[in-house]
Amino acid sequence: MFGVTILGNNSALPAYERHPTAQVVTLNDQLFLIDCGEGTQMQLTRYKIRRSKINHIFISHLHGDHYFGLIGLITSMGLLGREHELHLYGPSPLQDILKMQLDVAATNLPFPIVFHSLDKEGVIVETTKFSVACFPTQHRIPCWGFIIREKKNPRKIQKEKVVQYGIPAAYYDKLKEGSDFENKNGEIIKNEWVTIPNKPPHSYAFCADTKFDETLAEKTKGVTVLYHETTYLKDLEERANTRFHSTTVQAATIAVKANVQRLLIGHFSSKYEKLDNFLAEAQEVFPDTHLAIEGATYQI
Amino acid sequence: MFGVTILGNNSALPAYERHPTAQVVTLNDQLFLIDCGEGTQMQLTRYKIRRSKINHIFISHLHGDHYFGLIGLITSMGLLGREHELHLYGPSPLQDILKMQLDVAATNLPFPIVFHSLDKEGVIVETTKFSVACFPTQHRIPCWGFIIREKKNPRKIQKEKVVQYGIPAAYYDKLKEGSDFENKNGEIIKNEWVTIPNKPPHSYAFCADTKFDETLAEKTKGVTVLYHETTYLKDLEERANTRFHSTTVQAATIAVKANVQRLLIGHFSSKYEKLDNFLAEAQEVFPDTHLAIEGATYQI
Repeated sequence: MFGVTILGNNSALPAYERHPTAQVVTLNDQLFLIDCGEGTQMQLTRYKIRRSKINHIFISHLHGDHYFGLIGLITSMGLLGREHELHLYGPSPLQDILKMQLDVAATNLPFPIVFHSLDKEGVIVETTKFSVACFPTQHRIPCWGFIIREKKNPRKIQKEKVVQYGIPAAYYDKLKEGSDFENKNGEIIKNEWVTIPNKPPHSYAFCADTKFDETLAEKTKGVTVLYHETTYLKDLEERANTRFHSTTVQAATIAVKANVQRLLIGHFSSKYEKLDNFLAEAQEVFPDTHLAIEGATYQI
Repeated sequence: MFGVTILGNNSALPAYERHPTAQVVTLNDQLFLIDCGEGTQMQLTRYKIRRSKINHIFISHLHGDHYFGLIGLITSMGLLGREHELHLYGPSPLQDILKMQLDVAATNLPFPIVFHSLDKEGVIVETTKFSVACFPTQHRIPCWGFIIREKKNPRKIQKEKVVQYGIPAAYYDKLKEGSDFENKNGEIIKNEWVTIPNKPPHSYAFCADTKFDETLAEKTKGVTVLYHETTYLKDLEERANTRFHSTTVQAATIAVKANVQRLLIGHFSSKYEKLDNFLAEAQEVFPDTHLAIEGATYQI
């Protein structure tokens, strides 16, 4: 299972029951929270997402609609008796803000927070199963996008073939990694004779808030699902540029250039009650576009 | 019109669709916001309360469930183009927290915030029509209650009587204030011969979070409506004391001792899904008790 659940799809001002930005990425048994606008803890409850399963929270930037819900979520995790580590990734002033708010409340959290300050592009989490990297986007204040990548899946062994070639079971792990096998007679058994490729690893890029920036297409090249903000419809391109946001057509253009499989759009301005035009305009440029709808989960 | 609308009635951990503390007091054309837990701005929208009408916000203390929604509300007021002054009353570190959050977002609010640090008991707002006073409560960290009082209403002139006694119209304002009138012949026309009392001024006391503290009955003596927290049912009195909270019976006891007209109870622990027992237990001690229900308005 690799998917993203939308908890908030609106821009700064909550409107029409739409909430500020927050997304939960599920990758097998891991939950990652990306951004945490006001009300995220209530949205987690509404959509029955277990907050105790969240071990990594990524905050793109310090505009309130992307992090005002964080202190409440953290405080609640404490009240619920969480004891295991929580990893937080965000711009460094976030740490001071949280500390100040915990201090004035005389709150001693029962779990450790490990804070990772975002300061340069690159990998910020690396395990045997996945990696997360960050990259800067072009916004009014320092802002970061994130790419979550599954690790390469092991190749699948074809049972009848390994028996046929007499390869011992002790060598299977090496085969899964792609190695050839040399038998007692010095003959090379090519890996591709006895294994088949597993499904390719998938990836999710979250481009946060950003103005149109072609370098994002490079950074997110070939990801499975690209989330790109579309604060405005295409007729407000000038306003989008001035405010360091993007339009439908700009987001879809990045998706085309990045050659991604699917595009997810969100961060809709409160100007708009209906979202149909967002979908129509983006799909004209990049057909496999989807609206980020709150409560919906999109497979990655 | 003098009334209080409940936006949040739950204690720290949001549960069962109940929100953290926030109340809007309407006094004629004035709206006062008391406390501002996470999600208050969404609750204001839900219950169609115009945030532009709020000119005074009172924050009782710096536990998150009483103020985490403030920065979001303020930011949204700015995005909506508010220009008129907003008066904020709260413990002094609140000012630093807000400043830090506005600074990192590079936000310049289009309206001035006038911050009033709470440090001693007494009147904090005084106009010709109402006053607001604060008083300390006993909680884990510094915490303040508030009393909003209408000013004494002018006496009502009885038209036929003032004509009968020949009192000139220019003197009516003095009559409303309670003065007697002396006519040309040196005769004293007693005020009570020509006016009748208006309805008595009403008052609302908000006791914030507090453990059982009999001095609160003195401080809130005779108010029209008393809001007192009831985090727990009566069987958990020990837990209430330890955590600086109150039970149903304790709140109702304060209402009896303070000789108030009505009691409003709230700040229910997330332990409890149903609230019926809160009402039953408090009414046994103080019959005119009401549950603070979100979205409901209680006349003061």
